[in-house]
Amino acid sequence: MTLLESTLLDFPRTDREARGAARARLDQLTMPHWALGRLMDLAEELAGITGRTPPPVAAKTIVTVAADHGIAARGVSGYPREVTVQMVRNIVRGGAGINVLARLAGARVVVVDLGVDSDLADLVGEGKIVDKKIDRGTQDMTRGPAMTRAQAVRAVEAGIEIARELGPTTQVFGTGEMGIGNTTPSSAIVALYAGAPIAEVTGRGTGIDDRQLAHKVAAIEKAVAVNRPNMGDPIDILAKLGGFEIGGIAGLILGAAAQRKPVLVDGFISTAGALIAAHIEPLSRDFMIASHRSMEPGHRIALKCLGKKPLLDLDLRLGEGTGAALALHLVEAAARILTEVATFAEAGVSQAGG
Amino acid sequence: MTLLESTLLDFPRTDREARGAARARLDQLTMPHWALGRLMDLAEELAGITGRTPPPVAAKTIVTVAADHGIAARGVSGYPREVTVQMVRNIVRGGAGINVLARLAGARVVVVDLGVDSDLADLVGEGKIVDKKIDRGTQDMTRGPAMTRAQAVRAVEAGIEIARELGPTTQVFGTGEMGIGNTTPSSAIVALYAGAPIAEVTGRGTGIDDRQLAHKVAAIEKAVAVNRPNMGDPIDILAKLGGFEIGGIAGLILGAAAQRKPVLVDGFISTAGALIAAHIEPLSRDFMIASHRSMEPGHRIALKCLGKKPLLDLDLRLGEGTGAALALHLVEAAARILTEVATFAEAGVSQAGG
Repeated sequence: MTLLESTLLDFPRTDREARGAARARLDQLTMPHWALGRLMDLAEELAGITGRTPPPVAAKTIVTVAADHGIAARGVSGYPREVTVQMVRNIVRGGAGINVLARLAGARVVVVDLGVDSDLADLVGEGKIVDKKIDRGTQDMTRGPAMTRAQAVRAVEAGIEIARELGPTTQVFGTGEMGIGNTTPSSAIVALYAGAPIAEVTGRGTGIDDRQLAHKVAAIEKAVAVNRPNMGDPIDILAKLGGFEIGGIAGLILGAAAQRKPVLVDGFISTAGALIAAHIEPLSRDFMIASHRSMEPGHRIALKCLGKKPLLDLDLRLGEGTGAALALHLVEAAARILTEVATFAEAGVSQAGG
Repeated sequence: MTLLESTLLDFPRTDREARGAARARLDQLTMPHWALGRLMDLAEELAGITGRTPPPVAAKTIVTVAADHGIAARGVSGYPREVTVQMVRNIVRGGAGINVLARLAGARVVVVDLGVDSDLADLVGEGKIVDKKIDRGTQDMTRGPAMTRAQAVRAVEAGIEIARELGPTTQVFGTGEMGIGNTTPSSAIVALYAGAPIAEVTGRGTGIDDRQLAHKVAAIEKAVAVNRPNMGDPIDILAKLGGFEIGGIAGLILGAAAQRKPVLVDGFISTAGALIAAHIEPLSRDFMIASHRSMEPGHRIALKCLGKKPLLDLDLRLGEGTGAALALHLVEAAARILTEVATFAEAGVSQAGG
C-alpha cells in the first residue's frame, strides 16, 4: 500500500460529541447568545476537529512549500523565475513577510523545497530547509502535462510526509507557498473545479498588465485543451495543470487532517491545493479553515467552490502563508474563548429574560 | 479654560513626512507591490499618527467604560439593568470576553465607572476600577434630556482625563463599553449624524424580539421628537440622546489623538462615541482605526458616516472592547511589517520587470 493509500484508509471524521460539548459551554458564556459570532463558530469547529476541549492550538507551524513552474517561461508573471530561490533564501534568513507574521503569531516557519530550480544543498546541509525536491520545476503545461502522474503522487505524498514529520511538534498547521508563476496553475485548477470561465478566475498575480493577463488566460486555455484533464481524477488534474507545491499543500492538508489537526489554508494557491485535497478525500474539508480572502479575483470563486468562508479580508496577495499566520491569532482567540470566559452560573450574571 | 477647551487647542495633525517615509520603505519590501494590502495601509497610517517609524505600539490599553441608562427601564434590552454591574464585576474578575481577548493581545483592560447604578466603592478601594461616576445612570431620554449639558461635558472630560492618566503607560488605546440599554442611545446618535431612518439604524442589540425592536425604534423616535437636538452641537446631541460611556469614549478618543496615539474604535456604541468626537474635532478622525464591523445593522451605517473601513468582520456583537482587542494583533502586525521585512536591496531579490 502506498503512503497516499494508507493515509486515506480510515480517514477521520470530526468529533460530533466534542463539538456538542463545546457548543453547550459556548451557549452559557457571560455574553448575549453567540455574541462573539464567528470566533464561537471557530471554537466549536476546533473542538470537533481535535476532539478536545480546550482544543490544543499552542504549537503552530506554517509550512511554506517552494517550487518552480515550466509555465513561468511563458511570461505569465511580473517577476523572473530566479525570484523563487531568492525568496526562499530571504525566508530562511527571516526577512520575508511570512517570517514577521509567523514570529508575531508564535509560529514556526518550515520551508520545503519540492521543486526549486536551484541547488539548495547549502540550506539543506544547514537544516534550514526540508529537501523533498522532485524536479527543478514542472514542465510547460501548454505543451503537455506539467508533471508525470508519479511526480504528482510524489508531491502529495511529500506533503503527507511533512505533516507526519512535523506532527509531534505541531498542533495547528498553516499552508504557504513560494513559486514564481504559481497563480497560473492555481487558476487552471480552480476554473476546472468551479466550472467557471478561465478569464473570470485568472487575475494579475504579482501584478501583471492587461497584455500579460490576456496572455496568461490564453496559456491556461491552451493547457486545458492540450491536456484534457480527467475531472474525476484529482491526481490527473494535478499532474497535467498543477505545481509541485500545490500537490505538496494538498498532501499537507490530508496529512494534518489524518492526525485530526486543524489546517489553516492560506490564499489562492493554497486553496487550489485544498481543492485537490478535498477531491482526493472529501472528509479532509472538515479539517480545513479558510484564513482569508485574497485580492486575486479567483480566490472568491475558489473559496465558494471549497464551501468555506474566510476569516479575514485584508486585500492580501502575497502568499508564503501570510494569511494563515495572521489567522492563527483568531484560532488561538477562539480556543481561549471556549475555556477562559466565565459562564453565567460561574459569574453570577443574570441571563436574558431573567 | 476648561479641560475640553485646552484639549482642542492646537489639536495635532498626522505627520505627513513620517507617512511618506513609511510608504517609501513599504514600496521597497521584498514582495509584490503593496502585497500585504490593508496591513500596509495601516502601517502607513500608524506612522502618520505617531510620527515615528517604527510606530510604537507595544503598550496597549483597552478602556472599558461602564454606565447605566434611563432608557433601559423602557424595556429596550433583553437583559435586566443589573447586568451592567454584574458584568463590571465579571470583567474585574477576569472572566469576560474582553479579558480573554485582551490577555491574548498583551493588552491591559482598564474599567471605568462613569455611571453604573450601583455602589462600586469596594472595587474602587481595591484599585480595580477607575471611579469617574457622574450619576447612577442617565435619565429616560423619552421624557427629556438623558443628561444635563454639564454632565455631557463632564463625560467627555472624564474620557480625556483617562487618556491622560493612562498616557504614560499606553501607546495604543482601544475603546470599549458595558451598559445595558446602550445600543438605544447609540442608534439615536448614528441615525441623526448619518441622516438615516431610525428604523434602519436600530437593531436587536443583545437579542430582542420583533415586538421589543418596534418598541425600541418608537422610543428613539420619541426621544428625538421630545428633545430636538441641535445638529450643529455635538455636546447637545450627547446630552439629549447619549450615555455617559458614549461621552467617555468620545473624550478618550480626543485625549488619545491629542497625544498622537492611535485609538482602536470597537463596535457600534464606540462608533457612536467616535462620531461625537469627530464632530467635536474633525482632526481626531485621523487618529481613529475602525476595528471591526459588528452584527448590529446600524454599525455599517455608522462606519460609513465616520468614513472608516473596518479591519475585521466576524459577526461580533459583544462590545466591551472585544473587537478592538482582536484588531490589536493587526496593529502590531502592521508596525512590524514596516520595519522587520527586508527590502529588495537588503535581501538581494530581483524586482518586477527586472
